Amino acid sequence: MKQEIHEKSIDTASQAMLWKAKEEGMETVWDRYEKQLPQCGFGQLGVCCRNCNMGPCRIDPFGEGADKGVCGATADIIVARNLLRMIAAGAAAHSDHARDAVLTFKKMSEGKAGSYRIRDETKLLSIALEYGIAVEGKSCEEVAAELAHALLLEFGKQDGNLLCTKRAPGPRLKLWTELGIEPRGIDREIVECMHRTHMGVDNNATHILLQGLRTGLSDGWGGSMIATDVQDILFGTPQPRRSTVNLGVLSREKINVIVHGHEPILSEMIVEAAEDPELLKLAQEKGAIGINVAGICCTGNETLMRHGTPIVGTFLQQELAVITGAVEAMVVDVQCVMPSLGELTSCYHTKFISTSPKADFPNTLRMEFHEDRAYEIAKEIVRAAVENFPNRIPEKVNIPEEKQECMVGFSVEAILSALGGSPDPLIEAIKSGAVWGIGAVVGCNNIKVMHNHGHVTLVKELIKNNVLVVTTGCNAIACAEAGLLLPEAAELAGDGLKTVCKALGIPPVLHMGSCVDISRILLISSALANRLGVDISDLPAAAAAPEWMSEKAVSIGAYVVSSGVFTVLGTVPPVLGSQAVTALLTKDLNNVVGASFAVEPDPFKAADLMLEHIDEKRKALGLESRR
Amino acid sequence: MKQEIHEKSIDTASQAMLWKAKEEGMETVWDRYEKQLPQCGFGQLGVCCRNCNMGPCRIDPFGEGADKGVCGATADIIVARNLLRMIAAGAAAHSDHARDAVLTFKKMSEGKAGSYRIRDETKLLSIALEYGIAVEGKSCEEVAAELAHALLLEFGKQDGNLLCTKRAPGPRLKLWTELGIEPRGIDREIVECMHRTHMGVDNNATHILLQGLRTGLSDGWGGSMIATDVQDILFGTPQPRRSTVNLGVLSREKINVIVHGHEPILSEMIVEAAEDPELLKLAQEKGAIGINVAGICCTGNETLMRHGTPIVGTFLQQELAVITGAVEAMVVDVQCVMPSLGELTSCYHTKFISTSPKADFPNTLRMEFHEDRAYEIAKEIVRAAVENFPNRIPEKVNIPEEKQECMVGFSVEAILSALGGSPDPLIEAIKSGAVWGIGAVVGCNNIKVMHNHGHVTLVKELIKNNVLVVTTGCNAIACAEAGLLLPEAAELAGDGLKTVCKALGIPPVLHMGSCVDISRILLISSALANRLGVDISDLPAAAAAPEWMSEKAVSIGAYVVSSGVFTVLGTVPPVLGSQAVTALLTKDLNNVVGASFAVEPDPFKAADLMLEHIDEKRKALGLESRR
Repeated sequence: MKQEIHEKSIDTASQAMLWKAKEEGMETVWDRYEKQLPQCGFGQLGVCCRNCNMGPCRIDPFGEGADKGVCGATADIIVARNLLRMIAAGAAAHSDHARDAVLTFKKMSEGKAGSYRIRDETKLLSIALEYGIAVEGKSCEEVAAELAHALLLEFGKQDGNLLCTKRAPGPRLKLWTELGIEPRGIDREIVECMHRTHMGVDNNATHILLQGLRTGLSDGWGGSMIATDVQDILFGTPQPRRSTVNLGVLSREKINVIVHGHEPILSEMIVEAAEDPELLKLAQEKGAIGINVAGICCTGNETLMRHGTPIVGTFLQQELAVITGAVEAMVVDVQCVMPSLGELTSCYHTKFISTSPKADFPNTLRMEFHEDRAYEIAKEIVRAAVENFPNRIPEKVNIPEEKQECMVGFSVEAILSALGGSPDPLIEAIKSGAVWGIGAVVGCNNIKVMHNHGHVTLVKELIKNNVLVVTTGCNAIACAEAGLLLPEAAELAGDGLKTVCKALGIPPVLHMGSCVDISRILLISSALANRLGVDISDLPAAAAAPEWMSEKAVSIGAYVVSSGVFTVLGTVPPVLGSQAVTALLTKDLNNVVGASFAVEPDPFKAADLMLEHIDEKRKALGLESRR
Repeated sequence: MKQEIHEKSIDTASQAMLWKAKEEGMETVWDRYEKQLPQCGFGQLGVCCRNCNMGPCRIDPFGEGADKGVCGATADIIVARNLLRMIAAGAAAHSDHARDAVLTFKKMSEGKAGSYRIRDETKLLSIALEYGIAVEGKSCEEVAAELAHALLLEFGKQDGNLLCTKRAPGPRLKLWTELGIEPRGIDREIVECMHRTHMGVDNNATHILLQGLRTGLSDGWGGSMIATDVQDILFGTPQPRRSTVNLGVLSREKINVIVHGHEPILSEMIVEAAEDPELLKLAQEKGAIGINVAGICCTGNETLMRHGTPIVGTFLQQELAVITGAVEAMVVDVQCVMPSLGELTSCYHTKFISTSPKADFPNTLRMEFHEDRAYEIAKEIVRAAVENFPNRIPEKVNIPEEKQECMVGFSVEAILSALGGSPDPLIEAIKSGAVWGIGAVVGCNNIKVMHNHGHVTLVKELIKNNVLVVTTGCNAIACAEAGLLLPEAAELAGDGLKTVCKALGIPPVLHMGSCVDISRILLISSALANRLGVDISDLPAAAAAPEWMSEKAVSIGAYVVSSGVFTVLGTVPPVLGSQAVTALLTKDLNNVVGASFAVEPDPFKAADLMLEHIDEKRKALGLESRR
């Protein structure tokens, strides 16, 4: 079972830090994974139930032992219930993040969060109009206050359906209504998931999974989309810009402040505070030549997309960043932050600063963030980092050389602008076959996959076959590290895509943002579908999450497939213990929402599945369909 | 491991049906439990984590294997997170039930649910006033519409705290505010639990558990209390009345319709429909002398408390009821309904009718309930039962003789009325020592405990020691079956309590309703505390859940202890894998909320723990404290 270091990551910078960890006797996530092996087979199959205190129960997958839990729940019921709870947790993570963004937006509109202001008035007004708010003769703050109110209703609504789903193409929305999966209030859907999975409530796998689709939709077209919109209004809609990624972005001479987690509300302030003359002066006094803010995970993607702040790495590189010995502060908010950072940072000089009222960790310096004093708190945090610089231990510092340039910032607005204001040129390219299709590749790292191997291999295969890739989250960072987010990467693309990229000056892989920004992918898909006069499920498009690990990814999978996009998962979800649920997800869903899942750990085969799907969709549209 | 039938239940009627099941080759929950043994030790200790797809992970309780999950989560973190999800699911179950009650109430006020009307105007007006609604000059429907709106806000509120918690005694509310656990919107708390327990969010056991207390409070003083209030307004506030319980309430000559689950919205209509002349006539045509509606679990408690409808049994008797062969229809809504009923009913003539849009089961006749056609649907359901009567198979019918009289209906209003309008006589009795203290004994059955043994033994011990017992849920039904809900049971009480009961004509054990009606216990506790000028935690009172099994019970435990009441659990919660969490729950919470949990499976010892606690509280109040 023991892996060699070169088998753990495709990234040489990461390999170097794994060697350093080994020499210094530091434990990393790879070590902890090895200690967990073999993992529980019941859990992996999804047939373990802990939803009441008569259990825990488990179904014997070989059919020799128990075929039902104490209450009578079968494998089908148990697997479906567990999956629904994963969706509920994932949707909750995205939507609770969105709620905080809207609450900050509200406070801003009331003059109670003075550090924030409106940076994209156009988006404010256009979204206000979508929510039926009259904007004439009102100040931006007045419009913002009314929009904040309308958006908060989407979370708390007790009666009726969401308004935000109305952005979906007409046929899609109609289908959801017919299926009874048009989502109601976001919070209500999540609460109902928890209710339904309580002992003795919903005990029909199909029925349970339909609620999962509905809840997923309340995330993708609801919580996630609202997060994206409000963050764009508050912090600016991303536009193409260049930056650098990988561990080499850490600076030997500057104070390194890493922002890690998922919410940009604080990190936006950190980026600003790092340019505060007072703190820059203090930095010089402490012997540094400046302050270097760099990101990990989606907090990193958010500041990258809007400010070109460099990115240190993906999810699996968070510990490796600390092991460089060059990080003065690891500032975290919520989601995907390993609690192991507590013990690890205590072995270096790194201050592990936790900031969210919702998330605490072992051995952290607690500096709780509140919007009303946002900039002030950000300055205190950066100051703590600056003051920590003299504690850096030179003999422990080893920053890998690797850093890679990238081009990021492809919001829907930026893509349309690159296309000259309309999706038509892209549609023409698809029709001609120059762009064979669209591949959305997203999601986490997972310790079960060689770090970034799934991401990079799959994306390379797709562009080689003229599939234009849109990416978010850790896939985007992995692609950036592999140099795929540069216009020059067009050389790796097939002839058609290469020509299109060169003509437009864009990379063959478009970084569309953080995980909540998968909502941007929904919107560009809708724009294409509407323009073609078809449903999203008719597009020559497919999605993949080659290294997914989080419950958010399960919710994302639910809404992407419900939105009509075939999705290939690179790691196996805990559903194989139920043939019925597996068949439902991988086959029967096609007859329900016109799309389904596939599970394929091999990225080459995953690419083939996506390409075959795109071929079929091209054929159905009457386009050339033989590659 | 194999138990004899007489070891499975203390109830002879249940034993008889277990014999019948054995003879007929029917599988019951006891058989399935045996097949699950031995249960997974990791799950029992709470150290199994399935919150992301890098897992499943588990901590070696012997300290020889993995001491952290892949992400670095320790046993403390994993146990706390799992517990928080249990609380979230429990709170969701109660609150989602409450939401539906309020939505029905709203529809009624708008004239869209013609089968419902206001039955307790006094309660409507008094609660409206509590929510700051001016009632003067308004019709009941107008007040109801405004109240429904205010109550729905409690679920969907995005900013600020709940109003419903303001009913708690001043010092208690102040404490919650100081601790930061005064709950915000009900749905928001549940969603935040799911967010916090997502991979990489909250990783501090204490921090996690404080969110658990806050969420519990949003259930007890929020969802559950709102359910009770609205149901009282719509269906009437319970008043003392007599009825009968146990399997013997099933009728040989009548059509037996069992209502099972937790929500009275439909069952109220079933009770009415069973008296519909058209259906009674049809029943006679089919050879029956009438229609007998009887309940199981809390749907049963709701109709019992308001109409004196008999109760067939507790949670563990739901299968046994079918095995009598005399049930024409098992009509279920939500929660604690065993999916095994699907297979079991198909072996008899019983129609298994599922009605909730949220809950489906295997092999059911689906008759989905909607408030706008409530009575109509109820009639269809009863008609299906009536038409099924000729299918009864005489040789399969065996109804146990056992049925027991009981007195039920002790709402707060009824108790105060029995006391002459004020809590003073009870306070005087407590001061004099005639009533030594108050014991709240509640909760489920759990297959791990001999059926009803924990409930009945504990309650008998308490009343013997002059502790007046208030009860809800399956404990109430167990006490009813044991004859403890009769004024005559005062003979089993100590001298002091016996005298008080005889003077007031009440049983020593007061049935206060269903599980959501534990909110009534909170209110009577508040009334006593306020009258004594102390906090709830100062009262000579203690709680117990001797046979709890559901996640709702975990949420209940969280709010009862946070409200200041020491609580003894009869089955072991999945927390022992963390010494820190165990210490927090059983000790440290005393310094936080002035109450804690104990775990004690032996009901005699559990009674001792409660009595010792009551002694201490009496002493602190300057009352006689040596029994």
